Amino acid sequence: MCGKPVNERLLSPVSWSLPEWMGQFLAPLPSHFATDEERMGVAVSCARRNILEGGGPFGAALFGEESGELLAPGVNLVLSTGLSILHAEIVALTMAQQVLGMRNLAEAIRGGVALYTSCEPCAQCHGALLWAGISRLCIAGRREDAEMVGFNEGPKSPWPQWGEELEERGIRISRDVCREEARAVLDAYRAQGGVVY
Amino acid sequence: MCGKPVNERLLSPVSWSLPEWMGQFLAPLPSHFATDEERMGVAVSCARRNILEGGGPFGAALFGEESGELLAPGVNLVLSTGLSILHAEIVALTMAQQVLGMRNLAEAIRGGVALYTSCEPCAQCHGALLWAGISRLCIAGRREDAEMVGFNEGPKSPWPQWGEELEERGIRISRDVCREEARAVLDAYRAQGGVVY
Repeated sequence: MCGKPVNERLLSPVSWSLPEWMGQFLAPLPSHFATDEERMGVAVSCARRNILEGGGPFGAALFGEESGELLAPGVNLVLSTGLSILHAEIVALTMAQQVLGMRNLAEAIRGGVALYTSCEPCAQCHGALLWAGISRLCIAGRREDAEMVGFNEGPKSPWPQWGEELEERGIRISRDVCREEARAVLDAYRAQGGVVY
Repeated sequence: MCGKPVNERLLSPVSWSLPEWMGQFLAPLPSHFATDEERMGVAVSCARRNILEGGGPFGAALFGEESGELLAPGVNLVLSTGLSILHAEIVALTMAQQVLGMRNLAEAIRGGVALYTSCEPCAQCHGALLWAGISRLCIAGRREDAEMVGFNEGPKSPWPQWGEELEERGIRISRDVCREEARAVLDAYRAQGGVVY
């Protein structure tokens, strides 16, 4: 027991926010979105704006599944925060949990919660989905679309097995919703020489 | 475009801290720990103290692999924060990334970074490990020890496959380090009627 002073920084909060541009981005949006394509449009627009602002090419958005209410947007914040967990899905889920004050989103929102993501979740996010209480996952780009740019999705069962694993746990899945739009963001990121992390 | 005012709460920071008791817990500890058992002792002690304080029965600690320096402790903060991602491993990794100012811990610490965890990582944490830049994972309790208390580890390849998936990506693994001590914490949690979430 050498009595080194406690590292005060370990006792400070870990803190992050959505980007400053998000306020302007959200302001003109309707509060409710009816169709899968409209909801995915928010996720893909988040990704598109994020790469213009120096972030990674991934976006997400959480909606009340029945109501269509936008609960929280998400963008990949890994580069700006230096926190490797902050993929777009994690950002949206965590923001919604804080705003709603509940870790189990199924208990917070009647009619279920749907996560729209501009690209297939990586191994980390695939696991994280299960603990947040969502009832539906809607995906735009596929794993191979992200890999084409150089991103690695990590060890996960191959499709359709990983989808079945989520379905068994009560999460319904739709794929290829606005896939071309999401791929266009990945292509633009590659074209602008974006960092692969 | 109906012009609903932007939800100001979505623009507020998401923020969380290590528990208040952590300051007192850390103060008498040496700054460096030589052996796997000593290092795992920190992770298991975190878990033990956490259940006395109303938290979940999981702890973790990050060390410089060569130096033995304690970089960050972690405890499961899901119940106190309402954020489902805040497993002990995520807390330790994220705190270290913020304190060191680098998402790739391999670049921050010469000689590699080792994560000690009181229980086998769940599907989410297994994925998250890969993006944080650690070189070694040391595990106390096994999946079945957590499941005995009612916790679910999520969809992950069976052992030894999931270990091989991490090893292929440069993370060496040791299991069963202080397993009995970690199981004792899980048993105590069950005996005190702790929430399974």
